[in-house]
Amino acid sequence: MEFLQLAASRQSDRAYDKTRAVEREKLERILEAARFSPSACNAQPWKFVVVDEPELAFKIGKATASLGMNKFAKDAPVHILIVEESANITSMLGSHIKDKYFPLIDIGIASAHITLAAEAEGLGSCILGWFDEKTIKSLVGIPEKKRLLLDITIGYPAKAKRTKSRKSKEKIISYNRY
Amino acid sequence: MEFLQLAASRQSDRAYDKTRAVEREKLERILEAARFSPSACNAQPWKFVVVDEPELAFKIGKATASLGMNKFAKDAPVHILIVEESANITSMLGSHIKDKYFPLIDIGIASAHITLAAEAEGLGSCILGWFDEKTIKSLVGIPEKKRLLLDITIGYPAKAKRTKSRKSKEKIISYNRY
Repeated sequence: MEFLQLAASRQSDRAYDKTRAVEREKLERILEAARFSPSACNAQPWKFVVVDEPELAFKIGKATASLGMNKFAKDAPVHILIVEESANITSMLGSHIKDKYFPLIDIGIASAHITLAAEAEGLGSCILGWFDEKTIKSLVGIPEKKRLLLDITIGYPAKAKRTKSRKSKEKIISYNRY
Repeated sequence: MEFLQLAASRQSDRAYDKTRAVEREKLERILEAARFSPSACNAQPWKFVVVDEPELAFKIGKATASLGMNKFAKDAPVHILIVEESANITSMLGSHIKDKYFPLIDIGIASAHITLAAEAEGLGSCILGWFDEKTIKSLVGIPEKKRLLLDITIGYPAKAKRTKSRKSKEKIISYNRY
């Protein structure tokens, strides 16, 4: 039951307490949970670049904002940048033969571990896929050829929980038949 | 700390107790955790087809086995099939502009919720991306045009936990610089 409560209380937090830094030991536990994530053929096709220097975090937050999106991100004290690294040969072969790109699924799995672990530490988080990839890569020295796929903002929440809006069970779940 | 223990104890289980069925109320809680998953622009681009009829589960397990892979899956009492459904326009636009296909990431996130929720219920699970998609789609009536992306096997584990093999922290984590 407890895990279900954790999954229910986790939300995409878009307002953080700017005055409160995030403890490194909490970040270490969150990243350990990410490290334990499963991945296709155990390829672990990821690197996590954790940004918690205030000035750098501000610049990265700024680089996620455009077209009215992600205005809040400049106030996030922490960003976990997820870089796609080469998968192993069996995973790449499987991606090719079965026509689905496993590293994206793998990085989704690791992101879920991160956001749930953050919630367990009393922290808010938000997964961002919309940002100026080139600028952020240059800010932290990610090689040009690599893909920066996601940025997860982390911080102490500044607002109360919202009610979740989700499709009904009936719409997304069926038994023994589509 | 508790969530970290959950993430540490979850493993890809490839041996199930064939004599023990999985309770529907446990499956309901696992699926509720999946329903709460975040997704790009809250698109929720998924349907979950839960197979727990023994004969059908056996046939699906058989359809995941080839080239020596997934021999164990015929013994899994439950399969959760994850079908990709249309994302909303904002998510599809974001995928296009930023050149990353968000529904794959989203379905990765939901898979993590499912496997962690299964672990919390004392159940083993394994995410499979390798299977005969056409055969399984026809077995449960998934329309030909839709993609069946993943099959998650669920059941009571028949073997003890293994030690996890993962890249070291130093290899995958850095602070403020790639």
